[in-house]
Amino acid sequence: MKKIHLDPDTILHPHPVMLVGTYGADGKPNLMTASWGGICCSDPPCVAVSLREATLTYHNILHSQAFTVGVPSRKHVAAADYIGLVSGRDHDKFRDTGLTALQSERVQAPLAGELPFSLECRLFQHHKLGLHTIFIGEILGILADEDVLGPIGLPDIEKTQAILWGGLGNNHYFAVGEELGEAFSVGKSLKTS
Amino acid sequence: MKKIHLDPDTILHPHPVMLVGTYGADGKPNLMTASWGGICCSDPPCVAVSLREATLTYHNILHSQAFTVGVPSRKHVAAADYIGLVSGRDHDKFRDTGLTALQSERVQAPLAGELPFSLECRLFQHHKLGLHTIFIGEILGILADEDVLGPIGLPDIEKTQAILWGGLGNNHYFAVGEELGEAFSVGKSLKTS
Repeated sequence: MKKIHLDPDTILHPHPVMLVGTYGADGKPNLMTASWGGICCSDPPCVAVSLREATLTYHNILHSQAFTVGVPSRKHVAAADYIGLVSGRDHDKFRDTGLTALQSERVQAPLAGELPFSLECRLFQHHKLGLHTIFIGEILGILADEDVLGPIGLPDIEKTQAILWGGLGNNHYFAVGEELGEAFSVGKSLKTS
Repeated sequence: MKKIHLDPDTILHPHPVMLVGTYGADGKPNLMTASWGGICCSDPPCVAVSLREATLTYHNILHSQAFTVGVPSRKHVAAADYIGLVSGRDHDKFRDTGLTALQSERVQAPLAGELPFSLECRLFQHHKLGLHTIFIGEILGILADEDVLGPIGLPDIEKTQAILWGGLGNNHYFAVGEELGEAFSVGKSLKTS
Protein backbone atom coordinates (compact mmCIF):
# COMPACT_ATOMS: atom_id res chain seq x y z
CA MET A 1 0.00 0.00 0.00
CA LYS A 2 1.59 3.26 -1.09
CA LYS A 3 1.50 5.85 1.68
CA ILE A 4 1.06 9.56 0.93
CA HIS A 5 1.89 12.47 3.22
CA LEU A 6 -0.94 15.01 3.18
CA ASP A 7 -0.98 18.53 4.51
CA PRO A 8 -2.90 19.14 7.75
CA ASP A 9 -6.65 19.18 7.22
CA THR A 10 -9.85 18.63 9.15
CA ILE A 11 -10.53 15.05 8.12
CA LEU A 12 -12.09 12.33 10.24
CA HIS A 13 -14.58 9.60 9.34
CA PRO A 14 -17.42 9.90 10.19
CA HIS A 15 -18.71 13.26 11.44
CA PRO A 16 -22.04 13.48 13.28
CA VAL A 17 -24.71 15.95 12.16
CA MET A 18 -25.90 17.99 15.13
CA LEU A 19 -28.61 20.64 15.22
CA VAL A 20 -27.72 23.12 17.93
CA GLY A 21 -30.71 24.94 19.45
CA THR A 22 -30.37 28.32 21.16
CA TYR A 23 -32.34 31.44 21.97
CA GLY A 24 -31.12 34.82 20.83
CA ALA A 25 -30.89 37.78 23.19
CA ASP A 26 -34.27 38.75 21.67
CA GLY A 27 -35.77 35.39 22.66
CA LYS A 28 -35.97 34.11 19.09
CA PRO A 29 -35.30 30.35 18.80
CA ASN A 30 -32.59 29.33 16.37
CA LEU A 31 -30.97 26.17 15.01
CA MET A 32 -27.51 25.69 13.55
CA THR A 33 -25.96 22.64 11.91
CA ALA A 34 -22.62 21.53 13.36
CA SER A 35 -20.50 18.47 12.65
CA TRP A 36 -17.50 19.19 14.81
CA GLY A 37 -18.26 17.82 18.22
CA GLY A 38 -19.49 14.83 20.15
CA ILE A 39 -19.68 13.28 23.58
CA CYS A 40 -16.62 14.29 25.62
CA CYS A 41 -17.11 13.25 29.27
CA SER A 42 -19.07 10.58 31.12
CA ASP A 43 -19.22 12.18 34.58
CA PRO A 44 -20.63 14.73 34.34
CA PRO A 45 -22.10 13.68 30.99
CA CYS A 46 -20.97 16.30 28.48
CA VAL A 47 -21.13 17.01 24.77
CA ALA A 48 -18.79 19.33 22.83
CA VAL A 49 -19.64 21.57 19.89
CA SER A 50 -17.09 23.79 18.13
CA LEU A 51 -18.29 27.10 16.74
CA ARG A 52 -16.80 30.12 15.02
CA GLU A 53 -17.31 33.49 16.64
CA ALA A 54 -18.96 34.65 13.40
CA THR A 55 -22.00 32.46 14.09
CA LEU A 56 -25.13 33.64 15.86
CA THR A 57 -25.14 30.44 17.93
CA TYR A 58 -21.75 31.31 19.45
CA HIS A 59 -23.18 34.50 20.92
CA ASN A 60 -26.52 32.93 21.82
CA ILE A 61 -24.81 30.26 23.94
CA LEU A 62 -22.72 32.81 25.79
CA HIS A 63 -25.84 34.87 26.41
CA SER A 64 -28.14 32.09 27.63
CA GLN A 65 -25.44 29.75 28.98
CA ALA A 66 -27.37 26.86 27.47
CA PHE A 67 -28.00 24.95 24.23
CA THR A 68 -29.55 21.77 22.90
CA VAL A 69 -28.00 19.23 20.53
CA GLY A 70 -30.57 17.49 18.35
CA VAL A 71 -29.93 14.46 16.17
CA PRO A 72 -31.70 14.49 12.78
CA SER A 73 -33.06 11.46 10.91
CA ARG A 74 -32.90 10.60 7.24
CA LYS A 75 -36.10 12.49 6.67
CA HIS A 76 -34.44 15.67 7.98
CA VAL A 77 -31.50 15.70 5.55
CA ALA A 78 -32.70 18.69 3.54
CA ALA A 79 -33.70 20.58 6.69
CA ALA A 80 -30.36 19.88 8.38
CA ASP A 81 -28.50 21.07 5.30
CA TYR A 82 -30.64 24.20 4.98
CA ILE A 83 -30.02 25.05 8.63
CA GLY A 84 -26.31 25.04 7.83
CA LEU A 85 -26.71 27.24 4.74
CA VAL A 86 -28.36 30.32 6.22
CA SER A 87 -27.96 32.45 9.33
CA GLY A 88 -30.55 32.93 12.05
CA ARG A 89 -29.74 36.63 11.86
CA ASP A 90 -31.91 36.95 8.75
CA HIS A 91 -33.88 33.68 8.60
CA ASP A 92 -36.39 31.97 10.86
CA LYS A 93 -35.05 28.46 10.41
CA PHE A 94 -37.82 26.80 12.41
CA ARG A 95 -40.43 28.39 10.17
CA ASP A 96 -38.54 27.72 6.95
CA THR A 97 -38.01 24.02 7.72
CA GLY A 98 -41.37 23.41 9.35
CA LEU A 99 -39.68 22.19 12.53
CA THR A 100 -41.45 22.99 15.81
CA ALA A 101 -39.55 24.94 18.49
CA LEU A 102 -40.19 23.41 21.91
CA GLN A 103 -38.84 24.97 25.09
CA SER A 104 -36.53 22.57 26.94
CA GLU A 105 -37.81 21.88 30.44
CA ARG A 106 -34.24 21.60 31.73
CA VAL A 107 -32.38 24.55 30.21
CA GLN A 108 -33.05 27.90 28.60
CA ALA A 109 -32.85 26.66 25.02
CA PRO A 110 -35.23 25.45 22.30
CA LEU A 111 -35.21 22.10 20.54
CA ALA A 112 -36.91 20.83 17.40
CA GLY A 113 -39.78 18.58 18.40
CA GLU A 114 -39.65 16.46 15.25
CA LEU A 115 -36.08 15.20 15.90
CA PRO A 116 -35.77 11.71 17.41
CA PHE A 117 -33.89 13.06 20.41
CA SER A 118 -32.17 16.16 21.74
CA LEU A 119 -29.63 16.67 24.50
CA GLU A 120 -30.44 19.54 26.87
CA CYS A 121 -27.24 21.23 28.01
CA ARG A 122 -26.02 23.96 30.27
CA LEU A 123 -22.76 25.62 29.26
CA PHE A 124 -20.11 23.93 31.39
CA GLN A 125 -16.83 25.17 29.89
CA HIS A 126 -15.65 26.87 26.72
CA HIS A 127 -12.15 27.22 25.34
CA LYS A 128 -10.89 29.26 22.41
CA LEU A 129 -8.82 27.02 20.14
CA GLY A 130 -8.26 29.32 17.16
CA LEU A 131 -10.89 30.12 14.56
CA HIS A 132 -13.19 27.81 16.53
CA THR A 133 -14.13 27.85 20.20
CA ILE A 134 -15.12 24.56 21.77
CA PHE A 135 -18.28 24.74 23.88
CA ILE A 136 -18.71 21.95 26.43
CA GLY A 137 -22.29 21.39 27.52
CA GLU A 138 -23.24 19.38 30.59
CA ILE A 139 -26.16 17.17 29.55
CA LEU A 140 -28.94 17.79 32.08
CA GLY A 141 -31.63 15.81 30.28
CA ILE A 142 -32.66 14.19 27.02
CA LEU A 143 -35.99 14.60 25.26
CA ALA A 144 -36.65 11.59 23.04
CA ASP A 145 -39.40 10.04 20.97
CA GLU A 146 -40.66 6.97 22.77
CA ASP A 147 -40.51 4.91 19.61
CA VAL A 148 -36.74 5.40 19.03
CA LEU A 149 -35.79 3.83 22.36
CA GLY A 150 -34.04 0.45 22.33
CA PRO A 151 -34.08 -2.44 24.78
CA ILE A 152 -32.23 -0.54 27.54
CA GLY A 153 -34.38 2.56 27.19
CA LEU A 154 -31.90 4.72 25.30
CA PRO A 155 -32.13 6.02 21.73
CA ASP A 156 -31.13 3.22 19.33
CA ILE A 157 -29.20 4.33 16.24
CA GLU A 158 -31.12 1.93 14.01
CA LYS A 159 -34.41 3.40 15.18
CA THR A 160 -33.35 7.05 15.04
CA GLN A 161 -32.13 6.54 11.45
CA ALA A 162 -29.38 9.01 12.24
CA ILE A 163 -27.30 10.49 9.46
CA LEU A 164 -23.63 11.34 9.16
CA TRP A 165 -21.56 13.73 7.10
CA GLY A 166 -18.76 12.31 4.98
CA GLY A 167 -16.58 15.38 5.45
CA LEU A 168 -14.33 17.34 3.12
CA GLY A 169 -13.20 14.26 1.18
CA ASN A 170 -16.75 13.24 0.18
CA ASN A 171 -19.14 16.07 0.83
CA HIS A 172 -22.37 14.09 1.20
CA TYR A 173 -24.69 12.90 3.93
CA PHE A 174 -24.91 9.16 4.47
CA ALA A 175 -27.17 6.73 6.27
CA VAL A 176 -25.91 4.31 8.90
CA GLY A 177 -25.23 1.01 7.17
CA GLU A 178 -25.06 -2.65 8.10
CA GLU A 179 -24.12 -3.93 11.54
CA LEU A 180 -20.55 -5.21 11.69
CA GLY A 181 -20.25 -6.76 15.14
CA GLU A 182 -20.93 -6.24 18.82
CA ALA A 183 -18.74 -3.71 20.64
CA PHE A 184 -16.70 -4.87 23.64
CA SER A 185 -17.19 -8.38 22.29
CA VAL A 186 -16.09 -8.98 18.69
CA GLY A 187 -12.46 -8.31 19.63
CA LYS A 188 -12.34 -11.01 22.28
CA SER A 189 -11.30 -13.49 19.61
CA LEU A 190 -7.91 -11.74 19.52
CA LYS A 191 -7.31 -12.03 23.26
CA THR A 192 -4.05 -13.78 24.01
CA SER A 193 -4.38 -13.96 27.78
CA MET B 1 -45.17 11.29 18.65
CA LYS B 2 -44.99 10.67 22.40
CA LYS B 3 -42.02 12.44 23.97
CA ILE B 4 -40.13 10.91 26.89
CA HIS B 5 -37.82 12.71 29.32
CA LEU B 6 -34.66 10.68 29.88
CA ASP B 7 -31.99 11.11 32.50
CA PRO B 8 -28.68 12.61 31.36
CA ASP B 9 -26.55 10.12 29.47
CA THR B 10 -23.75 10.07 26.92
CA ILE B 11 -25.82 9.51 23.79
CA LEU B 12 -25.15 10.89 20.34
CA HIS B 13 -25.54 9.30 16.90
CA PRO B 14 -23.09 8.39 15.46
CA HIS B 15 -19.76 8.10 17.30
CA PRO B 16 -16.52 7.76 15.32
CA VAL B 17 -14.07 4.93 16.10
CA MET B 18 -10.59 6.36 16.59
CA LEU B 19 -7.37 4.47 17.25
CA VAL B 20 -5.11 6.74 19.30
CA GLY B 21 -1.39 6.02 18.90
CA THR B 22 1.16 7.00 21.55
CA TYR B 23 4.55 6.02 22.88
CA GLY B 24 5.00 5.13 26.52
CA ALA B 25 7.74 6.65 28.64
CA ASP B 26 9.62 3.41 27.87
CA GLY B 27 9.28 4.00 24.12
CA LYS B 28 6.76 1.21 23.60
CA PRO B 29 4.14 2.02 20.94
CA ASN B 30 0.52 1.67 22.02
CA LEU B 31 -2.96 2.01 20.55
CA MET B 32 -6.23 2.79 22.30
CA THR B 33 -9.77 2.84 20.96
CA ALA B 34 -11.72 6.05 21.59
CA SER B 35 -15.13 7.17 20.38
CA TRP B 36 -15.48 10.44 22.21
CA GLY B 37 -13.87 13.06 20.04
CA GLY B 38 -13.67 14.52 16.58
CA ILE B 39 -12.53 17.53 14.61
CA CYS B 40 -12.83 20.67 16.73
CA CYS B 41 -11.08 23.58 14.95
CA SER B 42 -10.28 24.51 11.37
CA ASP B 43 -7.44 26.99 11.98
CA PRO B 44 -5.27 25.55 13.34
CA PRO B 45 -6.73 22.19 12.28
CA CYS B 46 -7.39 20.28 15.49
CA VAL B 47 -8.92 17.02 16.65
CA ALA B 48 -10.20 16.29 20.17
CA VAL B 49 -10.05 13.01 22.08
CA SER B 50 -11.43 12.56 25.60
CA LEU B 51 -9.62 10.16 27.92
CA ARG B 52 -9.89 9.00 31.52
CA GLU B 53 -6.82 9.45 33.70
CA ALA B 54 -6.90 5.67 34.33
CA THR B 55 -5.77 4.99 30.76
CA LEU B 56 -2.17 4.54 29.71
CA THR B 57 -2.77 6.81 26.72
CA TYR B 58 -3.65 9.74 28.99
CA HIS B 59 -0.20 9.59 30.57
CA ASN B 60 1.57 8.80 27.31
CA ILE B 61 0.18 11.95 25.67
CA LEU B 62 1.24 14.14 28.55
CA HIS B 63 4.71 12.58 28.43
CA SER B 64 5.31 12.84 24.68
CA GLN B 65 3.04 15.84 23.99
CA ALA B 66 1.88 14.07 20.85
CA PHE B 67 -0.52 11.43 19.52
CA THR B 68 -1.97 10.07 16.31
CA VAL B 69 -5.63 9.41 15.49
CA GLY B 70 -6.11 6.53 13.06
CA VAL B 71 -9.36 5.66 11.31
CA PRO B 72 -10.07 1.92 10.99
CA SER B 73 -11.84 0.20 8.10
CA ARG B 74 -14.43 -2.58 8.12
CA LYS B 75 -11.65 -5.13 8.05
CA HIS B 76 -10.27 -3.72 11.31
CA VAL B 77 -13.46 -4.11 13.37
CA ALA B 78 -12.16 -6.96 15.54
CA ALA B 79 -8.78 -5.27 15.98
CA ALA B 80 -10.38 -1.93 16.92
CA ASP B 81 -12.59 -3.67 19.45
CA TYR B 82 -9.71 -5.68 20.91
CA ILE B 83 -7.66 -2.49 21.29
CA GLY B 84 -10.46 -1.13 23.47
CA LEU B 85 -10.70 -4.27 25.60
CA VAL B 86 -7.15 -4.52 26.97
CA SER B 87 -4.54 -2.15 28.37
CA GLY B 88 -1.17 -1.42 26.86
CA ARG B 89 0.23 -1.81 30.36
CA ASP B 90 0.11 -5.59 29.98
CA HIS B 91 -0.51 -6.19 26.27
CA ASP B 92 1.39 -5.40 23.09
CA LYS B 93 -1.62 -4.38 21.04
CA PHE B 94 0.33 -3.94 17.80
CA ARG B 95 1.65 -7.50 18.07
CA ASP B 96 -1.68 -8.99 19.13
CA THR B 97 -3.61 -7.39 16.26
CA GLY B 98 -0.90 -7.78 13.63
CA LEU B 99 -0.91 -4.04 12.99
CA THR B 100 2.43 -2.45 12.09
CA ALA B 101 3.73 0.42 14.24
CA LEU B 102 5.17 3.16 12.04
CA GLN B 103 6.88 6.22 13.46
CA SER B 104 5.12 9.42 12.43
CA GLU B 105 7.47 11.73 10.54
CA ARG B 106 5.73 14.78 12.02
CA VAL B 107 5.32 14.01 15.72
CA GLN B 108 6.70 11.71 18.40
CA ALA B 109 3.94 9.11 18.14
CA PRO B 110 3.33 5.82 16.34
CA LEU B 111 0.54 4.98 13.92
CA ALA B 112 -0.78 1.72 12.51
CA GLY B 113 0.39 1.38 8.92
CA GLU B 114 -2.59 -0.74 7.83
CA LEU B 115 -5.19 1.96 8.61
CA PRO B 116 -6.45 4.01 5.65
CA PHE B 117 -5.29 7.24 7.24
CA SER B 118 -4.00 8.70 10.48
CA LEU B 119 -3.83 12.25 11.79
CA GLU B 120 -0.46 13.24 13.28
CA CYS B 121 -0.97 15.60 16.20
CA ARG B 122 0.97 17.63 18.71
CA LEU B 123 -0.76 18.27 22.02
CA PHE B 124 -2.21 21.77 21.70
CA GLN B 125 -4.45 22.08 24.77
CA HIS B 126 -6.00 19.81 27.37
CA HIS B 127 -8.81 20.53 29.81
CA LYS B 128 -10.10 18.45 32.70
CA LEU B 129 -13.87 18.11 32.41
CA GLY B 130 -14.60 15.54 35.11
CA LEU B 131 -13.89 11.84 34.80
CA HIS B 132 -12.61 12.62 31.31
CA THR B 133 -10.01 15.11 30.17
CA ILE B 134 -10.29 16.47 26.65
CA PHE B 135 -7.02 16.45 24.70
CA ILE B 136 -6.88 18.81 21.72
CA GLY B 137 -4.32 17.86 19.12
CA GLU B 138 -3.12 20.20 16.41
CA ILE B 139 -3.02 18.18 13.19
CA LEU B 140 0.47 18.64 11.72
CA GLY B 141 0.13 16.06 8.97
CA ILE B 142 -1.87 13.12 7.65
CA LEU B 143 -0.47 9.80 6.49
CA ALA B 144 -2.91 8.16 4.07
CA ASP B 145 -3.11 5.26 1.67
CA GLU B 146 -2.98 6.61 -1.85
CA ASP B 147 -5.93 4.46 -2.90
CA VAL B 148 -8.38 5.95 -0.36
CA LEU B 149 -8.03 9.48 -1.70
CA GLY B 150 -11.01 11.01 -3.51
CA PRO B 151 -11.20 13.54 -6.35
CA ILE B 152 -9.86 16.46 -4.28
CA GLY B 153 -6.99 14.43 -2.85
CA LEU B 154 -8.44 13.85 0.62
CA PRO B 155 -9.53 10.56 2.19
CA ASP B 156 -13.00 9.63 0.87
CA ILE B 157 -15.30 7.96 3.40
CA GLU B 158 -16.59 5.53 0.79
CA LYS B 159 -13.05 4.42 -0.02
CA THR B 160 -11.81 4.21 3.57
CA GLN B 161 -14.82 2.03 4.46
CA ALA B 162 -14.81 3.74 7.85
CA ILE B 163 -16.86 2.30 10.69
CA LEU B 164 -18.90 3.91 13.45
CA TRP B 165 -20.05 2.91 16.90
CA GLY B 166 -23.78 2.94 17.65
CA GLY B 167 -23.21 3.97 21.26
CA LEU B 168 -24.88 2.92 24.50
CA GLY B 169 -28.32 2.50 22.96
CA ASN B 170 -27.16 -0.05 20.36
CA ASN B 171 -23.72 -1.32 21.25
CA HIS B 172 -22.54 -2.43 17.81
CA TYR B 173 -20.23 -1.24 15.08
CA PHE B 174 -21.82 -0.23 11.81
CA ALA B 175 -20.71 0.46 8.26
CA VAL B 176 -21.41 3.74 6.48
CA GLY B 177 -24.58 3.28 4.46
CA GLU B 178 -26.16 4.80 1.40
CA GLU B 179 -25.58 8.36 0.24
CA LEU B 180 -28.49 10.66 1.10
CA GLY B 181 -27.63 13.93 -0.62
CA GLU B 182 -24.93 16.49 -1.22
CA ALA B 183 -23.95 18.70 1.70
CA PHE B 184 -24.26 22.48 1.33
CA SER B 185 -26.58 21.75 -1.57
CA VAL B 186 -29.57 19.51 -0.82
CA GLY B 187 -31.00 22.12 1.55
CA LYS B 188 -31.11 24.87 -1.07
CA SER B 189 -34.58 23.69 -2.05
CA LEU B 190 -35.85 25.15 1.23
CA LYS B 191 -34.35 28.59 0.66
CA THR B 192 -36.95 31.29 0.85
CA SER B 193 -34.76 34.22 -0.18
